[in-house]
Amino acid sequence: MYVVVNAAMSADGKLSTRRREQIAISDPDDFDRVDQLRADSDAVMVGVGTVLADDPSLTVDDPDRREARTERGDSANPARVVADSRVRTPPDAKVLDGAAETYLLVSEAAPTDFVEEMEAAGAYVVATGEDRVDLTTALAKLEGEGVDQLMVEGGGELIFGLFEEGLVDELSVFVGPKILGGRDAPTLADGDGFVEKFPELDLTGVERLDDGVLLTWSVDGRTE
Amino acid sequence: MYVVVNAAMSADGKLSTRRREQIAISDPDDFDRVDQLRADSDAVMVGVGTVLADDPSLTVDDPDRREARTERGDSANPARVVADSRVRTPPDAKVLDGAAETYLLVSEAAPTDFVEEMEAAGAYVVATGEDRVDLTTALAKLEGEGVDQLMVEGGGELIFGLFEEGLVDELSVFVGPKILGGRDAPTLADGDGFVEKFPELDLTGVERLDDGVLLTWSVDGRTE
Repeated sequence: MYVVVNAAMSADGKLSTRRREQIAISDPDDFDRVDQLRADSDAVMVGVGTVLADDPSLTVDDPDRREARTERGDSANPARVVADSRVRTPPDAKVLDGAAETYLLVSEAAPTDFVEEMEAAGAYVVATGEDRVDLTTALAKLEGEGVDQLMVEGGGELIFGLFEEGLVDELSVFVGPKILGGRDAPTLADGDGFVEKFPELDLTGVERLDDGVLLTWSVDGRTE
Repeated sequence: MYVVVNAAMSADGKLSTRRREQIAISDPDDFDRVDQLRADSDAVMVGVGTVLADDPSLTVDDPDRREARTERGDSANPARVVADSRVRTPPDAKVLDGAAETYLLVSEAAPTDFVEEMEAAGAYVVATGEDRVDLTTALAKLEGEGVDQLMVEGGGELIFGLFEEGLVDELSVFVGPKILGGRDAPTLADGDGFVEKFPELDLTGVERLDDGVLLTWSVDGRTE
């Protein structure tokens, strides 16, 4: 499986304000690039924090791209994947609106009534890990379901978890022309943070895009 | 006064690990660029958090650059400026080693014995603001002392404070090929964070440097 993390951050590395309000960091050209990347992926993944903060649909916006997918025998939209260790996905979230398949990743400690509620809402529930989603096992299960390219759109907790497990192959970051600031504002990679060994990146692309810059990094897939 | 903020951050926007340990983010070419920027500046400023975490000397490394400064009638090293609202600068800090003039910015609430201790250690103490340094007034005083170009090297609390006051003219950020992660790790701009109006930047330079990229932004000097 090829895992590409894609995000837009402010010039100071923030995904949103300290109030977790999403601010327009990207510009039209970058939105279009992200839409193409979704259309090129088998699944699009977010953490439940992003579902709660932004309620994204994660679907492909451009009808031509959806049509191109169906013409090649794929679903109109890539599958959606939500990592939700603490069973917080609301049943009326847009990711459960039926516009695409949705995988909900939970831990084995997820209560049966939550699992049943999510299944009734149309989700495929995938349980791994004792009390927290085991991302390595969960992604292997998704690969078994045909997910060869997984796009990850955030947030910072999920992105850190994927780096921690050595699961990220590529990181695309649009750096936008704003300062958000805030010691408590969500950043591109949150979690506990690395303290001794750090994932090392190779800069594979630098492109001015609108009023910002798109940086593309490849990842060794292991911390060193 | 022209204020240029210069920092090196990881690909995820961190200045150091959550333990505030400085990690080598920059490479030799960037160190050299930073040394030149110091040599071109009248003063180099940090927050006291940076003094406590890294104990930097903030002097010019290259002897040829120091000589060029003295040849044009300047001091060998630019002045050093420490913003220290909570009077935490230790008297044995390297910024007080006599290698350059040092201005210590404190609030009017700074205890007399601390001020006397710092003056005995060789610092010029500048008191502004009731219980927190008033950066606008303090920088105006520095300008009165001949500081026309001020370079700011961090940390994130000071950088946020300068953006908050609309005092930043230029931001140079070296983005290095590492992920540090950490919801509590220091970022390029910490502080309380902006929530409604955000400083807007113009991207003036994009340059690959070593294994990272140097982004240069100009700032309107006001939030909009």
